[in-house]
Amino acid sequence: METATNLLSHPVDTVMGTLGLDTWNIKKLNPKFVRPVPKDIEIARSQKPKPINELSQEIGILPEELELYGPSKAKVSLKIIERLAHKKPGKYVVVVGITPTPLGEGKSTTTIGLVQALCAHLNRNTFAVVRQPSQGPTFGIKGGAAGGGYSQVIPMEEFNLHLTGDIHAITAANNLLAAAIDARMFHENTQSDEALFNRLVPKNKEGKRILSEIQKRRLVRLGITPPEDANSLSTEERKRFSRLNIDPSTITWYRVIDTNDRFLRAIEVGHGSQEKAPKFVRQTEFTITVGSELMAILALTTDLRDMKERIAKIVIASDKEGNPVTADDLGVTGAIAVLMKDTVKPNLMQTLEGTPVFVHAGPFANIAHGASSILADKLALKLVGENGFVVTEAGFGADIGMEKFFNIKCRYSGLVPDAVVMVATVRALKMHGGGPAVVAGNPLPHEYLNPNLDLVRAGCDSNLKKQIENAQKFNVPVVVCINRFSTDSQEELDLVVAKVKEFGAEGVVANHWAEGGKGAVDVAHALIDATTKTKSDFKFLYPLEKSIKEKIETIAKEIYGAGSVAYDELAEKKIQLYTNQGYSHLPICMAKTQLSLSHDPNLKGAPTGFTLPIRDIRISAGAGFLFPLCGDMTTMPGLGTRPCFFDIDIDPDTEIIDGHF
Amino acid sequence: METATNLLSHPVDTVMGTLGLDTWNIKKLNPKFVRPVPKDIEIARSQKPKPINELSQEIGILPEELELYGPSKAKVSLKIIERLAHKKPGKYVVVVGITPTPLGEGKSTTTIGLVQALCAHLNRNTFAVVRQPSQGPTFGIKGGAAGGGYSQVIPMEEFNLHLTGDIHAITAANNLLAAAIDARMFHENTQSDEALFNRLVPKNKEGKRILSEIQKRRLVRLGITPPEDANSLSTEERKRFSRLNIDPSTITWYRVIDTNDRFLRAIEVGHGSQEKAPKFVRQTEFTITVGSELMAILALTTDLRDMKERIAKIVIASDKEGNPVTADDLGVTGAIAVLMKDTVKPNLMQTLEGTPVFVHAGPFANIAHGASSILADKLALKLVGENGFVVTEAGFGADIGMEKFFNIKCRYSGLVPDAVVMVATVRALKMHGGGPAVVAGNPLPHEYLNPNLDLVRAGCDSNLKKQIENAQKFNVPVVVCINRFSTDSQEELDLVVAKVKEFGAEGVVANHWAEGGKGAVDVAHALIDATTKTKSDFKFLYPLEKSIKEKIETIAKEIYGAGSVAYDELAEKKIQLYTNQGYSHLPICMAKTQLSLSHDPNLKGAPTGFTLPIRDIRISAGAGFLFPLCGDMTTMPGLGTRPCFFDIDIDPDTEIIDGHF
Repeated sequence: METATNLLSHPVDTVMGTLGLDTWNIKKLNPKFVRPVPKDIEIARSQKPKPINELSQEIGILPEELELYGPSKAKVSLKIIERLAHKKPGKYVVVVGITPTPLGEGKSTTTIGLVQALCAHLNRNTFAVVRQPSQGPTFGIKGGAAGGGYSQVIPMEEFNLHLTGDIHAITAANNLLAAAIDARMFHENTQSDEALFNRLVPKNKEGKRILSEIQKRRLVRLGITPPEDANSLSTEERKRFSRLNIDPSTITWYRVIDTNDRFLRAIEVGHGSQEKAPKFVRQTEFTITVGSELMAILALTTDLRDMKERIAKIVIASDKEGNPVTADDLGVTGAIAVLMKDTVKPNLMQTLEGTPVFVHAGPFANIAHGASSILADKLALKLVGENGFVVTEAGFGADIGMEKFFNIKCRYSGLVPDAVVMVATVRALKMHGGGPAVVAGNPLPHEYLNPNLDLVRAGCDSNLKKQIENAQKFNVPVVVCINRFSTDSQEELDLVVAKVKEFGAEGVVANHWAEGGKGAVDVAHALIDATTKTKSDFKFLYPLEKSIKEKIETIAKEIYGAGSVAYDELAEKKIQLYTNQGYSHLPICMAKTQLSLSHDPNLKGAPTGFTLPIRDIRISAGAGFLFPLCGDMTTMPGLGTRPCFFDIDIDPDTEIIDGHF
Repeated sequence: METATNLLSHPVDTVMGTLGLDTWNIKKLNPKFVRPVPKDIEIARSQKPKPINELSQEIGILPEELELYGPSKAKVSLKIIERLAHKKPGKYVVVVGITPTPLGEGKSTTTIGLVQALCAHLNRNTFAVVRQPSQGPTFGIKGGAAGGGYSQVIPMEEFNLHLTGDIHAITAANNLLAAAIDARMFHENTQSDEALFNRLVPKNKEGKRILSEIQKRRLVRLGITPPEDANSLSTEERKRFSRLNIDPSTITWYRVIDTNDRFLRAIEVGHGSQEKAPKFVRQTEFTITVGSELMAILALTTDLRDMKERIAKIVIASDKEGNPVTADDLGVTGAIAVLMKDTVKPNLMQTLEGTPVFVHAGPFANIAHGASSILADKLALKLVGENGFVVTEAGFGADIGMEKFFNIKCRYSGLVPDAVVMVATVRALKMHGGGPAVVAGNPLPHEYLNPNLDLVRAGCDSNLKKQIENAQKFNVPVVVCINRFSTDSQEELDLVVAKVKEFGAEGVVANHWAEGGKGAVDVAHALIDATTKTKSDFKFLYPLEKSIKEKIETIAKEIYGAGSVAYDELAEKKIQLYTNQGYSHLPICMAKTQLSLSHDPNLKGAPTGFTLPIRDIRISAGAGFLFPLCGDMTTMPGLGTRPCFFDIDIDPDTEIIDGHF
């Protein structure tokens, strides 16, 4: 195993600015450890962050590559990837989890604890890459997502609130497209072919009808060569150009909002007198912004050009003849790209111990793929350099988050993962071993508060074993991080470590919640060891050229343990439609509960032989995946009777924020 | 008249940092003047802005008082007001307009041209304070709002897009309150008194029910002393505390979105199966964000404490007994304040000639009061100092914008205006003098392209005369700025100047659109002269203690020229309700068309004797005004057949944005 001492003797680039730093010289922050461990927000508040431009300098970012957003957040230029093109990338590590309880098992906390260990304690250049949280849950029930205890991103309130506005920009862009859809249908329904064409391509002062670039692209897609003056188009060509003929029943582009608003789950729009209700009234819905395709696009894009191309390809509906209607047909590609132009730059923040974090993109892990951005990972890999580590996170349980990380994110990025860190807790293992249900808001049953080796063992032999096997199917080494709770007994922890060994991986107990990076040093050592000894021989689970059904069935059987897959009529129809439209080559993004390896949240452990039901299949043609729905998926959380906003407050004099973030 | 040379000899503070600069030493930008005048975006793009921290230093802002948002925008700390408490404020000037054509007469352009003249050409410390534009119109029909020609705020795309996220923060805050309303009604309707109370005030580990601060405030409002443990409340007290009993038919809090989305003008929410439709389905609407009460609050607040108090007072509906239900009753005051904590800091940008601009708040001028923020004005007045100028803008025609600026904004700020600059154009005067209708999108009739002294004269004698008289009712000196168009003849311009003199004001022709600050130097001189010679003896139009009807009638008769006011039954009922609820002392914010002095957009010139219809009266109890609706007011713009987004694009390599912003 390579040690910190070895690393410190590595040569340091002298031309820091242009070549990047070989070993960073980071000013560590030393949080004061208090016992018992205080509330997250108190810990976050007690540690003053470094000015973010100081941190950026320490890790070799040039001043002109940094855009400050206040003193503790900054956007980082993508040009760094070019400047450091010659540099070998660092090790690429993904943090995943076993199937969690509804309380979560500390994946984010582990991600932050681990980078603090690697960077602040073992002096390895290390970046954490995490998702930006949605404000909906922040003000609803969940609280913040900046990690916890002494493993957090700071300042926590900046992390949990607007950050640099990326989610807001996505909301604006998404809703511009939504407004454009309804407005276009309205105008097509209320105007003659001639009036419509004349308005879409108005005469200029010389009487010519000049097409905009995006209008020319539509003509090309229709097989018509764009003329210099659109007056020369035939009546039939004008009609084909002007009428998108959207079939309202096929619209899959929804409005979004970053608020938990259950009454927007299903709404009727167009009740206004000017929209001539009820003719154009139609039912639609609002999705939470992080569930939007644009968020998935941001997370999967590789540069601004690629993002524009993905936006153009977004399919919002079919026309009345069954052809896909795209964002480009509606004329909004450029406007959406303009609204999202700053979102492509990753946001730099820091951990409680002063090490760097990229917070970038935050796609839902159910209807999207649940991982932070490819761009942030790529930037970070260049900045850490050959001896460094990038620790990125995959949402939900490994059966969803890890599978999508590998088959979707790594496929689009071309990046090869070097290791998996799988988070497990004694609590979740007991649940999988047959313990009683864990319900958010209710007190934990006694099984979870007192030692019970049988439950732990059964949990290891079912869920943990299967999730490790799943990781091994991708040929990537696995380190299991056992995230220690104060109620865990040493015997229970020892048992998990032994079981992990039996399953062919390395198991290490960590205590970063209470101890910060120091508590995860053993995990860090195991990770360094795993990535040094074992060369990752990464492979995908399925090739893209397989049929939609073959791909779904591979995931269902190999990862979930299903015996078979059953398709509803709607799903069958959609498979036919998307195959006809030429989208069958896309990877699959399963929308499934994270609370079970199966589709049924009540089936714990590692169920087998079940039939996985596919209710519907939808498309994110811009993001680049098909998402089958396994049962009902809520895409808009609600507010409970007493949302956490009752506790949130700000002192007008000190500007200190309080409440359960 | 004081000249630039005099000013330059004024003593300069030596301790710049703590006392503020007496005379700024600003590095002027010198845009290259091209003929014919290019498109706005081309001009904006051709001038590289100074780094915003350089400008902030030039005007005496300390580094710790600045929060950069990228290289060309920054938020400025309110603490400057305290630091410069000893400094005398500068002259306070408001730019207003005569009743405009639908094309607009260049108020923003004049504001920027005038500050460029004062600051870059006459070396007077001068700040422009303008509103942040809504993104709805930016992507719809209107294009940007950064001024025009050689009088603009740069970089234009930053100004027109997200800026520093203030509007997005308001959207999020507004919609959290909206979601809270529907969720609360849902939970009240589906739970027993006991279940509701137990969920609102859950037991802690010791079995006590601890009230949060905001819950204690509700009890106090109900006349109940908050106990340490809410278990001690009686059944009746628990019920009164838990049940807001909102009457759904009285809800006046709408969701908002910063997108022109006409299909959200009237919607039905709650069609989701989990909301047990159709029981809770109700009709509501989306308003454009800048039309929200929170935007008006941001514009009228005087500090963070005041903002929290205003948020707490927001009335969202009446309960079933006719009592107001507030945001504080719903428990969201603190959360909204937290979401809006950064919005209170004004945003610093610059003009094309490198002089400072605050861009802050952007309330609609119809259902809100249409002026930028009190805080930005106050900050700017301190920064410019005794010999400087702050030029702020009041939206729409002077009958609305100026009247509200004086009676609402100045009342809440305590600031006394030193002068009015009234923008007039030969085009608008011709319209008021009897010229044919001016329609956006249609070619201008020949009357507007060729000299016509009779139309100009009739326009002066009607609308211009009345608007000047209106300004004079407030005892403030008036300078009329005749914003020159290339089609104006010298005789027409001379006639307007002579007429203005006849009406007791100073008239000056300006050409800042084509010439930048240089083109407005004469206006600047006239303004310096007016504020030096005449001491403003400002007075309000009405005292607050008058009845709602008396206040409405004073505005209708004295400012609009109405003969009488007619109230619909709904309006009468609301006057009764708000008087009963104790809100009759609030100032009045008339919601009226800007296209006429009357409520009828077709009545040009200065109509008299008409009956002003009041359809409804609504309340913004937090912002602090009642707003009577004179006829139908659209609070959500729509998208036309060919919105301007068809032209908007970004080059992925250069990141240059194009399109008609």
